[in-house]
Amino acid sequence: MTFHLANRMQKLRTSDIREILRVTQRPSVISFAGGLPGPTTFPVEELKAVALEVLEKEGAQALQYSTSEGHPILREQIARRMRERQGAVVSADEILVTAGSQQGLDLVAKAFLEPGDEVLCESPTYLGFIQAVQVFEPTFVEVPTDDSGMRIEALEDALAHCRRPRLIYVVPDFQNPSGRCWSLERRRGLLEVARRRRIPVVEDAPYAEIRFEGEALPSLKALDAHGQVIQLGTFSKIFCPGLRLAWIAAPGELLQRLVPLKQAADLHTATLNQMLLVAYLERYDINAAIERVRDVYRHRRDAMTAALEREMPAGTRFTRPRGGLFIWVELPGAISARRLLARCLERDVAFVPGDCFFPAGGHGNTLRLNFSNMPEERIAEGIARLGQALGTLLAEEAEREPVPAA
Amino acid sequence: MTFHLANRMQKLRTSDIREILRVTQRPSVISFAGGLPGPTTFPVEELKAVALEVLEKEGAQALQYSTSEGHPILREQIARRMRERQGAVVSADEILVTAGSQQGLDLVAKAFLEPGDEVLCESPTYLGFIQAVQVFEPTFVEVPTDDSGMRIEALEDALAHCRRPRLIYVVPDFQNPSGRCWSLERRRGLLEVARRRRIPVVEDAPYAEIRFEGEALPSLKALDAHGQVIQLGTFSKIFCPGLRLAWIAAPGELLQRLVPLKQAADLHTATLNQMLLVAYLERYDINAAIERVRDVYRHRRDAMTAALEREMPAGTRFTRPRGGLFIWVELPGAISARRLLARCLERDVAFVPGDCFFPAGGHGNTLRLNFSNMPEERIAEGIARLGQALGTLLAEEAEREPVPAA
Repeated sequence: MTFHLANRMQKLRTSDIREILRVTQRPSVISFAGGLPGPTTFPVEELKAVALEVLEKEGAQALQYSTSEGHPILREQIARRMRERQGAVVSADEILVTAGSQQGLDLVAKAFLEPGDEVLCESPTYLGFIQAVQVFEPTFVEVPTDDSGMRIEALEDALAHCRRPRLIYVVPDFQNPSGRCWSLERRRGLLEVARRRRIPVVEDAPYAEIRFEGEALPSLKALDAHGQVIQLGTFSKIFCPGLRLAWIAAPGELLQRLVPLKQAADLHTATLNQMLLVAYLERYDINAAIERVRDVYRHRRDAMTAALEREMPAGTRFTRPRGGLFIWVELPGAISARRLLARCLERDVAFVPGDCFFPAGGHGNTLRLNFSNMPEERIAEGIARLGQALGTLLAEEAEREPVPAA
Repeated sequence: MTFHLANRMQKLRTSDIREILRVTQRPSVISFAGGLPGPTTFPVEELKAVALEVLEKEGAQALQYSTSEGHPILREQIARRMRERQGAVVSADEILVTAGSQQGLDLVAKAFLEPGDEVLCESPTYLGFIQAVQVFEPTFVEVPTDDSGMRIEALEDALAHCRRPRLIYVVPDFQNPSGRCWSLERRRGLLEVARRRRIPVVEDAPYAEIRFEGEALPSLKALDAHGQVIQLGTFSKIFCPGLRLAWIAAPGELLQRLVPLKQAADLHTATLNQMLLVAYLERYDINAAIERVRDVYRHRRDAMTAALEREMPAGTRFTRPRGGLFIWVELPGAISARRLLARCLERDVAFVPGDCFFPAGGHGNTLRLNFSNMPEERIAEGIARLGQALGTLLAEEAEREPVPAA
């Protein structure tokens, strides 16, 4: 029997990445497609120890229902880390523990967006943001970016054409998909414009601590003197993603409005998972663990940029991120990344076509490469195959071109 | 800084239970307020063993991202249990693993409800349903019930006045809050009416396996020959709630529409938690464990009904549930359950006023008692205090009444 569904169901675009990732589950595939952390960095032994300890000492509590806001000690630990690592002025009652940052996006979109409301974002932007937010049927407004982040005059132009701008969503550090980092000037510029227009800024910060070199710039949250920034933080990239542990840091009054939404969505984040993390943060040095993650990813980034230099034909452009998990590639001319993907899949290599990251589509000659989930020799091999596939495609395109008149 | 929020935020009613539960966290309080399983029934030792095993053998996988639909083996295990225990015809690809049934409600509401759409439910109904669904701004239509479930002619009357009825939500087995079980005739009647009107039926079934005596009646899902039932199942009451593991069982085509909503909401349910459950279901006999849960709760139900018989003044009515976690009480005359609650809290006893369970409020002389989370002697003591508080209140009311004319 078929039923009447809500309007929002018509607009839902299923994730292209999902289908690509399905293919890439074969172990033979060299996948640059997902955004998966490298599993060798996961704290498996540490989790064994804390699992035993938590279940031994507080088993009944760990398996029981708990509060929607999150474990009180974990909220303290998160606030303390934000103060120490970012210099952000945040207290425990400004932290809501969520089931991954994806849930943070869902809750924030629920709180702010009516159908037709405008949500502004970088162009390109994070695919998971597009998916979470489109459920609430807003109008996406893509703001042009360059290597320093969102262009502030372009943001002002865009806002001049908005009727109901309700949110600005950005990933200022090592953006997914571009790998770019915003300059301090752009960070300040964004906050100033948003403050004048009274539009909350959602700062998604999953990669801020995955920096390979250079000095960290202040987070938007650290620069926020007016209570205008909602920061989404996560343990997925600095601990592990499979426990689904993340948080929303928002001004207290706003946070209190989000709590009933969290309660309505899933009552609370898994108690055991939160208590494992509490114990882990008490017993172990997560900053040392993050240092090891950085080391692994830095080598992988180096392997990928070296291979791209070596293997890609002239005219290919790519970013050289100083952190994060992703490199952004622009193919020469009008070569289609989707055509290239089809060729690459034949060679057991996968990536995500760049058009997925633009709410309005387009930019067919761009693609995203992930370097965190493959060892260096597989990266070199995969990029070599990518280069060969691209070379073949370019040669075919050249053949098809009409012979220029003499 | 304050911002413009979505309309839905104005309608969100924060949970009364939340505030009551906050008080009841003091260990001195005898709480009949929550819906918490008894922690002595939790499989703590078994989880220690499977946690070690899963992290030892498959640690990297257990801590990594996983698929939105849920762990393939868990989906198989759930479908098999539904076939074996309910006789429902369900396959693994009709199962979506969710973070508790609360998330199931959120996803179903998202899929079906526009503002102003009608959602029909029992009167009274489950509070978590009201909370999940009100985010999507429907009109609640309460259908009168009696001891055999929803009254089918009342359902037809209600539907005759609906403009856009989109969902019917019911808890046919040991309903929260009433403890009542639907008759077979009412189950069939509901499916027939819903089928004629092409309205999907959401069967929330958290307590179906917590039966103390008598024969189980077929679930709506087992009676469903037309693909019209979405069943919400959960491990919270038969395993433990703190891992947040539940599922939606829906016809395959509909389930495929829910998957992008799950992905948008939180990507997937925690991988480790699913793998712990997979291993638990492989190594241990969950049916034997459920038998032990039933034994514990049966004794507690008996203790509570005996105490109510003993302690409550004449004119008090209460249900005698044959399963589940709750007893529903109607106080004599127009005694306010909220006034009674204030008196009880002074005596360190808590419950939930019944008006919380009616979307339109009212029914001020009703209340819900939970018997699963307190040992028998605490139940006896708590009900004795409740009876005393009620006796005092009744005496005061009688004094205030005008002396009847001679």
